[in-house]
Amino acid sequence: MKNRNHTIPPWLRRGIPALDWLTHYERRDLRGDALAGVIVATLLIPQAMAYALLAGLPPEVGLYASLLPLAVYALLGSSRFLSVGPSALLSLLILTQVAALAEPGSPRYLAFAMATALIVGVMQIAMGAARLGVLTNFLSQPVLSGFTSAAAIHIALSQVKHLLGVPLPRTDHLHELLGELVRAVPQTHWPTVAISIASIVLLLAFQYLLPRVLARWKSFPPALAQSLSKSGPIVVVIVGTAIVAAFHLGASNGVSIIGEIPGGLPRFALPALAAAEFLPLIPLAVAISFIGFLENISVAKSLAAKRRQKVDSNQEFIALGAANLAAGITGGYPVSGSFARSTVNFTAGANTGLASLITVAVVALAALFLMPLFHHLPQAVLAAIIILAVTGLMDFGMPRRLWRYNRADAAALILTFLAVLAVGVTKGILIGVVSTILLHLWRTSRPHMAVVGRVPNTEHFRNVQRHDVQTLPRALLLRIDESLYFANAKYMEDFVLRTAADRPRLRHLVMICNAINFIDASALETLTDLLARLQDAGIELYLTEVKGPVMDRLADTEFLEQLGSERVFLTTEEVYEKLASLYLP
Amino acid sequence: MKNRNHTIPPWLRRGIPALDWLTHYERRDLRGDALAGVIVATLLIPQAMAYALLAGLPPEVGLYASLLPLAVYALLGSSRFLSVGPSALLSLLILTQVAALAEPGSPRYLAFAMATALIVGVMQIAMGAARLGVLTNFLSQPVLSGFTSAAAIHIALSQVKHLLGVPLPRTDHLHELLGELVRAVPQTHWPTVAISIASIVLLLAFQYLLPRVLARWKSFPPALAQSLSKSGPIVVVIVGTAIVAAFHLGASNGVSIIGEIPGGLPRFALPALAAAEFLPLIPLAVAISFIGFLENISVAKSLAAKRRQKVDSNQEFIALGAANLAAGITGGYPVSGSFARSTVNFTAGANTGLASLITVAVVALAALFLMPLFHHLPQAVLAAIIILAVTGLMDFGMPRRLWRYNRADAAALILTFLAVLAVGVTKGILIGVVSTILLHLWRTSRPHMAVVGRVPNTEHFRNVQRHDVQTLPRALLLRIDESLYFANAKYMEDFVLRTAADRPRLRHLVMICNAINFIDASALETLTDLLARLQDAGIELYLTEVKGPVMDRLADTEFLEQLGSERVFLTTEEVYEKLASLYLP
Repeated sequence: MKNRNHTIPPWLRRGIPALDWLTHYERRDLRGDALAGVIVATLLIPQAMAYALLAGLPPEVGLYASLLPLAVYALLGSSRFLSVGPSALLSLLILTQVAALAEPGSPRYLAFAMATALIVGVMQIAMGAARLGVLTNFLSQPVLSGFTSAAAIHIALSQVKHLLGVPLPRTDHLHELLGELVRAVPQTHWPTVAISIASIVLLLAFQYLLPRVLARWKSFPPALAQSLSKSGPIVVVIVGTAIVAAFHLGASNGVSIIGEIPGGLPRFALPALAAAEFLPLIPLAVAISFIGFLENISVAKSLAAKRRQKVDSNQEFIALGAANLAAGITGGYPVSGSFARSTVNFTAGANTGLASLITVAVVALAALFLMPLFHHLPQAVLAAIIILAVTGLMDFGMPRRLWRYNRADAAALILTFLAVLAVGVTKGILIGVVSTILLHLWRTSRPHMAVVGRVPNTEHFRNVQRHDVQTLPRALLLRIDESLYFANAKYMEDFVLRTAADRPRLRHLVMICNAINFIDASALETLTDLLARLQDAGIELYLTEVKGPVMDRLADTEFLEQLGSERVFLTTEEVYEKLASLYLP
Repeated sequence: MKNRNHTIPPWLRRGIPALDWLTHYERRDLRGDALAGVIVATLLIPQAMAYALLAGLPPEVGLYASLLPLAVYALLGSSRFLSVGPSALLSLLILTQVAALAEPGSPRYLAFAMATALIVGVMQIAMGAARLGVLTNFLSQPVLSGFTSAAAIHIALSQVKHLLGVPLPRTDHLHELLGELVRAVPQTHWPTVAISIASIVLLLAFQYLLPRVLARWKSFPPALAQSLSKSGPIVVVIVGTAIVAAFHLGASNGVSIIGEIPGGLPRFALPALAAAEFLPLIPLAVAISFIGFLENISVAKSLAAKRRQKVDSNQEFIALGAANLAAGITGGYPVSGSFARSTVNFTAGANTGLASLITVAVVALAALFLMPLFHHLPQAVLAAIIILAVTGLMDFGMPRRLWRYNRADAAALILTFLAVLAVGVTKGILIGVVSTILLHLWRTSRPHMAVVGRVPNTEHFRNVQRHDVQTLPRALLLRIDESLYFANAKYMEDFVLRTAADRPRLRHLVMICNAINFIDASALETLTDLLARLQDAGIELYLTEVKGPVMDRLADTEFLEQLGSERVFLTTEEVYEKLASLYLP
């Protein structure tokens, strides 16, 4: 197959991974791609409209964000199965941050959402091009988990009013929202509640009951069964809309319906904003760039590993950035890879990005011709879809697992969770990030150090407190189990000086450096000071087992000059023998 | 000697280290203590007045800050030689931050300076009691060095107007100060310049020429020679004041003089401020608490090591905090240990804290009886003393050394230096701290990993790229040279998955963990994901040489359960033999 690609230059093949399957598409891949493409579309259409409403945007904006962005990702993304489009988390971020700038639902609000997608696109492409994908790692797992669970609670609570059929003023503060909900309970609109309950029951039945029923039917293909179990949303949308339309529940009974959705495809247009109006969106765009990318990459990695395909983080950043740019110029809003839809795509048998292009075609047909059918779609149905989608985001097993593994990490999770609930999404996540970084510095600021001795008749050296080992009378062997840097060098120095002060007869100190992976400039200064202080106290310092890269760096330094390179030994055994010969006959 | 202490409970001896020498003071220590005490006082008196003026305070405030605080430290400090009192750096911090709240020189300004000392005292005592001394390590060496050099330039430039004898409006912005200075050059007051030049020449002669001259005189005691060479400031003060007084240069020629200084000892008083007025001082107090402590501890450690005495960081925090409280209630301002004066104290022969108490007595006598003599002391003389004192703080060798050792650290230094010059002292140092932390995360975010093989006929495993080693056909041995945590776990995972994707026939992956000192919760999640992804790809994962504490933590985790404890080996040799037996006959 390689010779088919010989006319395409390698940089182009790296930049547009789709060329790989486009240039030698196999006919037998078509059936899987077509089936997966259609199934994903039936899941995507209701989700896209629901998430757009969650974000405070008209439902068609969700569909627009599922057209060009999805096609662009299919061409540029390094995963063949990933399905990008609207996401619940990003929709919540848009709602909480953009609502401060414009009235949700207004054209200006849409302009801000489009502008956010544009900025996110530029940032993600820039980070991918600068190979800064690694920066996203600063969002640690506890912070992400705490954020996601709290955001899911935010989202679910914001939908309760639609389930109850009561109008509520929008608020950023959870305690206000809760208060309003409690006060609104007496005004509950019972027909709406009936629709809500029916929708939830139907969705749960599809998700949990259908797979069991189909599993009994032995000859039914399991992949199709799994895909069918995900078709709850489209079924509930069709059934709900049909019932509301048939019985005129919208007009006569006051059930909230979506109303008229303009049919047709989006037009290319830039958001109607002055340049300066983009500025206040930057913090939001940073949060969306990181969180969107993290959603994306974790899905891409899971699916690629199943077929031993590679995912290139930086190419992913560029592809997702391009998808967001596409959203920003076609009336959409920020997108990322969806775990649910990508898994459906994969299990329904998608082989190449063509599946996503087929999804785009189906969504486009729906946008062109089916919008009038959604006129009577009840809000409650979409709210039920959102709530069931986000309950999967809440992970209360994680804090328990963390608590057992490492209480500090569990504390970071709980802090982020509470901060997101209390002070809001973006500030909460910032608090989480800063606390994790401080926690990490704290954790490494007290390195483990062990006084060691020789296991008799071997070349092994072990902790004197745990093993029965040989030591030398006026020498101390100290193993340092951590790289030395600004936050822990002084602790190490204090430990050494205290140890020396406790042993008035000490003459030789051996530092075993096999766990030191780097020494930063602060630690080097500390070591230089320590050397001088030990010399003042009449103690000779020796180093052993210094790693190659660390020794390379030390080569030209004042520290090594003052220490003397003859004091650096390859093995602890060597220096032990040398010191032993000084004292033992 | 121990039996003499038996009546004092240990907690009291730890809390008041001076009890150690107070309870068995040896007569032969007295000569050294007395001499050192007097010599330090002659250096302290001019410096204290000069630094107070630098801080925008009346000169007597510098003396007040050298009385009770110095005595308190002598009783509570764990160093016997440290001399606390006004410092140039802290004075600059006071000037730049408090001047925004009150007019320098006014009673309200003094109240804010006293209040700062009180807050600093409380913070330092709290940090010492909570054993948080380790927090100061977050100020890395490059940040401290960049800050100190930039602050020294700030200080020196702020004194140039006194050298030239021109009045200038005070400004926080260096470029404005430079502009004002250039514009003021034509108004230079030549008699003042003459005094300035003479002072500088005399100070330089004492510092550099006198030791050489005395060194030729063989029988002259070197310690006394070193102390005499530090007596330039008091000599230049006496000579300068005498000349100005004799020729009436102050009144008739317009040479700026100190004027009347109220004689007498300070009274106990709290700063006359409302409680709410303390709040804006908190960021300044945080900076002073940290920087003052770092000045203090580095001096204390240097001197203590020379006699193998211990310095207890937390006790130092408490002692310095108590000294600052003492400054705050006796009309002083924040203090810290002085490198110059402590070294003089040590080399002049101080044996115990009594030397500092003698210094206090001499300063008190000066405050009571000598103040009228300082009436004609020219500002230019004090400016010359300050400038020569702070030139020692500028360290332009450090950036060069760092540049050779590690460019990233050098960049942090230069960034802090420029930030302090450009945006001011406290914001500049904050920028430095944040950049060092990010730099550190960046540095550890790409851990070194090596594919290794067995050195033939040994149990040693080495990098395949550097050594001629044996490998196995369908197995890969990977050594990870860094602890795994949130900022580097994904990088490791990417590396492993890429390596696996490049080797389609790979079946066994061995991770050698001897340099992994901890695995945080994020990294554990990543490992769990990685394990699942490797399993999906049909690759078995093995761990070897996991450190004890790391293994203890892993014990109860889902990761270990899914891995299977039979996949964890003590030595790499064991797993190598096992895998070799699968493929080799």
